[in-house]
Amino acid sequence: MAGTVTSPAPRRGEPGWIMSGEMAEQPEVLRRLLTEGAPQIRETARLIAARKPRFVLLSARGTSDHAALYAKYLIEVELGLPCGLTSMSTTTAYGATPHLEDVLLITVSQSGGSPDLGASAAAAAEAGAITLAVTNNPDSPLAEIAQFHIDLLAGPEKALPATKTYTAELMALYLFVMGLRDDDGSAAAVVPDLAARVLERGEEVRHLAGRYRFAERMVITSRGYGYPTAKEAALKLMETSYIPALAYSGADLLHGPLAMVDNISPVIAIVTQGRGGRALQPVLDRLRGRGADLVVVGPAAQVEAASGGFALPTDRVPEALQPLLEILPLQKLAYEVAIARGQDPDAPRALSKVTETR
Amino acid sequence: MAGTVTSPAPRRGEPGWIMSGEMAEQPEVLRRLLTEGAPQIRETARLIAARKPRFVLLSARGTSDHAALYAKYLIEVELGLPCGLTSMSTTTAYGATPHLEDVLLITVSQSGGSPDLGASAAAAAEAGAITLAVTNNPDSPLAEIAQFHIDLLAGPEKALPATKTYTAELMALYLFVMGLRDDDGSAAAVVPDLAARVLERGEEVRHLAGRYRFAERMVITSRGYGYPTAKEAALKLMETSYIPALAYSGADLLHGPLAMVDNISPVIAIVTQGRGGRALQPVLDRLRGRGADLVVVGPAAQVEAASGGFALPTDRVPEALQPLLEILPLQKLAYEVAIARGQDPDAPRALSKVTETR
Repeated sequence: MAGTVTSPAPRRGEPGWIMSGEMAEQPEVLRRLLTEGAPQIRETARLIAARKPRFVLLSARGTSDHAALYAKYLIEVELGLPCGLTSMSTTTAYGATPHLEDVLLITVSQSGGSPDLGASAAAAAEAGAITLAVTNNPDSPLAEIAQFHIDLLAGPEKALPATKTYTAELMALYLFVMGLRDDDGSAAAVVPDLAARVLERGEEVRHLAGRYRFAERMVITSRGYGYPTAKEAALKLMETSYIPALAYSGADLLHGPLAMVDNISPVIAIVTQGRGGRALQPVLDRLRGRGADLVVVGPAAQVEAASGGFALPTDRVPEALQPLLEILPLQKLAYEVAIARGQDPDAPRALSKVTETR
Repeated sequence: MAGTVTSPAPRRGEPGWIMSGEMAEQPEVLRRLLTEGAPQIRETARLIAARKPRFVLLSARGTSDHAALYAKYLIEVELGLPCGLTSMSTTTAYGATPHLEDVLLITVSQSGGSPDLGASAAAAAEAGAITLAVTNNPDSPLAEIAQFHIDLLAGPEKALPATKTYTAELMALYLFVMGLRDDDGSAAAVVPDLAARVLERGEEVRHLAGRYRFAERMVITSRGYGYPTAKEAALKLMETSYIPALAYSGADLLHGPLAMVDNISPVIAIVTQGRGGRALQPVLDRLRGRGADLVVVGPAAQVEAASGGFALPTDRVPEALQPLLEILPLQKLAYEVAIARGQDPDAPRALSKVTETR
């Protein structure tokens, strides 16, 4: 059509073609979880709720650690259960013998293959915990070790930067946590179509990417439910473009690193529509007051008040589900910045897909 | 003496004179905590131990958040209690109503003045938690709100980058956690003198600082007990020199950000003498294999195997106490890099000493 700018997907073998394909699969993966995955997830939640866990621990690394952080917000806000992210080395390196009666340990891992995750799940079960693994591989060691398993059903992930397994983890954890309080999670039904609409707007993201092509550093901030998105976006940028991208909760940014933000440190703010976004408002005002280059991913009104951004269709979406949409333009941003810098997003130097840490 | 390079302290009113003075006070502050502070800390620990907490939550922001993370390792390793860092916005922004029976909430804050810390401590007490505040101001709102209070006795801290209150927080938390299991913490008695010896070697740090004067980014890594030091060192560098300094646990570094480390991203590794340091070894090997510029703060042998570093006198010091020494050369490093760049470490732009986040 005249005037339409098309954004051709890379062809097989071109840099980024694997990551590009996996990003595009996300609506389908989310739909599959909601149909094929949800009944088993609800049943798992029912069985675990019957055990009445009083505390929840979450174990993960890398991208999955950001999904775990998302689950931490959900569990604290929606269930009111105290919750912590584990410091894995306390069991794997220091051999701590914890007391974990009434504790639910959720381990999140795309591959289910990293030895430290398996070791800490085994140690937790030994110490009395209920153990649940969330992985993309039901045959993985971790899935074997844990008492309960949720399968992400995302299909093989080949690109080194995780994309579809991240959003699948968010969806699976949402359905599970809601299931713990006997909520069927049906509010999530709108997400796959909205995700598809966001992904159609790749050209907007390509345009945004231009401003970061020569960036030496970036700051990414959010608060509440958007904070895991900030951390995951920073990791994607670092993995693909090697830009030092620093993620801070808005509150922590004011406690120190704000000194680093000025007209040469661009800022991306993830603004949820809801309480987290409102709590971020003083930080946004402060950033604008300093003349920061501020790009917003969030509601249209927030984008308009900033230097630029990507408006999300979040009007009918509960705040707890917005992270599933927020990360999509940011994954694509990392991809486009890498391409613009002449790098291959599929294969960051020095990394392998299954990271074995002990 | 001929050949001796002296390192004159800045005179009153010169850039950095306040931070410099407060760094120098640290051995004295630690000594005061061990003598005047310890009996009350032990008594507080005894009273709280009698309540038999089963789960510990820690709340803090900025530098104090790193002291809280240190306490998390101590509590998990030394007590075997499951432990989490709170996401404060879940109570302050989302109004979550948690179930906190048998939970000990420790809030750590130099000023005791930030409203969100007070609000979340009050909400936790309401929800059944035992609440303890660790602050440098017994008259602060937070000290009033919490059921128990530990005073850091560090004297007023005027420089914006916190230094003496950080090491005081570590020491107070060490004595408290050890007290929970009826250990008098006497292993800490060697720390003040060793701290004084480390601080005498400022000239070595000034020499190290030269290599970072023009650095565009830095990566700081560690594992286990040294990890909070990595995070605190990164914050100090960002606050004073505005260098984007990225802190990763060694395990997380392998799960992604390693792509960013190359011959233009210098790395500082904090290597404890003990299990955390041993768990970091594969990461150090990997970094050396990539030709990274690797500076080590840790045992002499590790420094010798690296591109440079600062050897710590840790031979008789339990690993759990080494963080009190590790941070000292890194505080000084942040200070020296800021001076070398013509900045004033006392007053980073945009920051105020008591940060009010809600």
